[in-house]
Amino acid sequence: MPRERTLLPSALQDAYTLGGLDPEGLFPCILGHEAAGIVESVGEGVTSVAPGLFPCILGHEAAGIVESVGEGVTSVAPGDHVIPCYQAYCGECKFCKHPESNLCVSVRAFTGKGVMKSDGKPRFSVDGKPLFHFMGTSTFSEYTVVHEQSVAKVDPAAPLEKVCLLGCGVSTGWGAVFNTAKVKPGTSVAVFGLGAVGLAVIEAAKRAGASRIIGVDINPTKFAAAKEFGATECVNPKDHDKPIQQVIVEMTEWGCDYTFECIGNTSVMRAALECAHRGWGTSVVIGVAAAGQEISTRPFQLVTGRRWMGTAFGGYKSRVQVPDLVSEYMAGGTLLDKYITHTMKFDDINTAFELLHAGECLRCVLTF
Amino acid sequence: MPRERTLLPSALQDAYTLGGLDPEGLFPCILGHEAAGIVESVGEGVTSVAPGLFPCILGHEAAGIVESVGEGVTSVAPGDHVIPCYQAYCGECKFCKHPESNLCVSVRAFTGKGVMKSDGKPRFSVDGKPLFHFMGTSTFSEYTVVHEQSVAKVDPAAPLEKVCLLGCGVSTGWGAVFNTAKVKPGTSVAVFGLGAVGLAVIEAAKRAGASRIIGVDINPTKFAAAKEFGATECVNPKDHDKPIQQVIVEMTEWGCDYTFECIGNTSVMRAALECAHRGWGTSVVIGVAAAGQEISTRPFQLVTGRRWMGTAFGGYKSRVQVPDLVSEYMAGGTLLDKYITHTMKFDDINTAFELLHAGECLRCVLTF
Repeated sequence: MPRERTLLPSALQDAYTLGGLDPEGLFPCILGHEAAGIVESVGEGVTSVAPGLFPCILGHEAAGIVESVGEGVTSVAPGDHVIPCYQAYCGECKFCKHPESNLCVSVRAFTGKGVMKSDGKPRFSVDGKPLFHFMGTSTFSEYTVVHEQSVAKVDPAAPLEKVCLLGCGVSTGWGAVFNTAKVKPGTSVAVFGLGAVGLAVIEAAKRAGASRIIGVDINPTKFAAAKEFGATECVNPKDHDKPIQQVIVEMTEWGCDYTFECIGNTSVMRAALECAHRGWGTSVVIGVAAAGQEISTRPFQLVTGRRWMGTAFGGYKSRVQVPDLVSEYMAGGTLLDKYITHTMKFDDINTAFELLHAGECLRCVLTF
Repeated sequence: MPRERTLLPSALQDAYTLGGLDPEGLFPCILGHEAAGIVESVGEGVTSVAPGLFPCILGHEAAGIVESVGEGVTSVAPGDHVIPCYQAYCGECKFCKHPESNLCVSVRAFTGKGVMKSDGKPRFSVDGKPLFHFMGTSTFSEYTVVHEQSVAKVDPAAPLEKVCLLGCGVSTGWGAVFNTAKVKPGTSVAVFGLGAVGLAVIEAAKRAGASRIIGVDINPTKFAAAKEFGATECVNPKDHDKPIQQVIVEMTEWGCDYTFECIGNTSVMRAALECAHRGWGTSVVIGVAAAGQEISTRPFQLVTGRRWMGTAFGGYKSRVQVPDLVSEYMAGGTLLDKYITHTMKFDDINTAFELLHAGECLRCVLTF
């Protein structure tokens, strides 16, 4: 069997994210990304995941220890501590070789279908029926099987129940600042959505030297954390009669040098673009919108110098750079611990979701 | 009277542009930019120009000689050869001082209203009634009055009937490549719309070292010129059953490193973005869409690494850089002469427009 798989054992953890603005509207999409269990059917209006993926084992933000490896796997060995990465890295494809992209395609066609590359089949089953993989990770499980390209080997001294967060949201927020927008010192930043991703953007923007960081959320209970992470001020769109982009343009005269959408709401993506600074402002889409939704704006917004970009996993080349992020955490240079507001046993996962939906949780780490 | 104005005499020339794709759909907007005469009323559905601008003297791509200057004007003197620039440059505002923007705001509020800054009034009249300025240039006239910030002093040896083209379209195309997209050697480029602006993009892309340049137009009579300017191949969307972005993605496997929309058609702007290379492709909006029209796409297009940008006057800081472009022309480093397919007297302006609408003209230079 070719180089393809790694078994992860019982130390798996997972964590969950919820954007700050309009969580109800996102629900069909969040379901696919973050609920646990086996979906037997898709209800009316649920369009964000392909029916072909069900039934599957969900979960994608985790850490674990390699239990065994498939034939030909050389880059990890049993006992290695790893973070599964939904964005693979092979080091050989056009995207891995390009300095500006992390969108490795080595196993993409297969992880998209919930199967392994070598034989096009999943490694899970229940009662003799196949269970598909999810995002190439399927971490809501004591054991999972992933492609070799989808695990980053990390410092074994790092606490798995902390660095599991580097498998998605926090890394994405940091990378959006450092790799995608490349925030410069002395600049202004607006962050839409003060969940864990938004806070990670704020943390990174502060570290990058931004002098003004405006947090935006319709849930004002998020503002205290935002300021703790580095926001210099916070704005609640509900406190204003005019569109939030207009409010921020007026606060800043011409808009912010960088704006980030950390929710997955296409209306907010537009707002974020339209309060990017005339002439050079960059707006980065981080949130994942529900399937079928589109962003729009007047082209005049671009012709007058705004730049609309996006990021997936913050642009980090996963296997290469996640270990660096772990080292950075171990050196004490991050606020990673602060994103973990709850910990519980895996059996309490529904409680974790209730906390998330209520906006009372940043990250809940589950252990088996 | 404060520093504000420069008179341009009878040597004025002007030139006209027409995008290659779907010119009919653009007509209400092109009317405002490029027709000559005095508009007495705005018909139903015409929304691209503010009624307050009429009646006005149109025209914006020209060259001339300073006849006299207002009090306090020091940077140009009678006899200087100049190119009027609809995008002003003062050197002192936030945008002039920023290295990445040319969107000077020194006189913007006044040129937008068709008046001069010093007293908020126009300098033209007919039968005692005021005639408004247009784009701060109003070059369909033997004499015009412009702000000092709106003229670039150029080499007096340069032929005015050639370098007038540097007042808008050709500079815009060149700058979109060099300043906005910053095209690198060995890359792939797609250019939508093979009018003068599209050809200027092709010319610049070739000079920047792009190795593959795909011209796109629904009028195949444009392809010969595109290849002469540097296109390595041309595509007619009408020859394909599938969307043009899909055609180009298939031609290039993942899309082009850079794409340019040179028409003003929002559907084409979307197509151009969606055939930019996954992971790092940059798409630049150059065309000016009709008022009220919007661009849209799935945010997934940005999250997977595409960048949507725009450009106005190619990012050139007008008074500083237009003289350099003239020098570059004088040194023989450009194809500027090739854009001029027709020359005629100003009285024949309607004939020039007929040629443009028929797609039979790149630039027609008119002289008085």
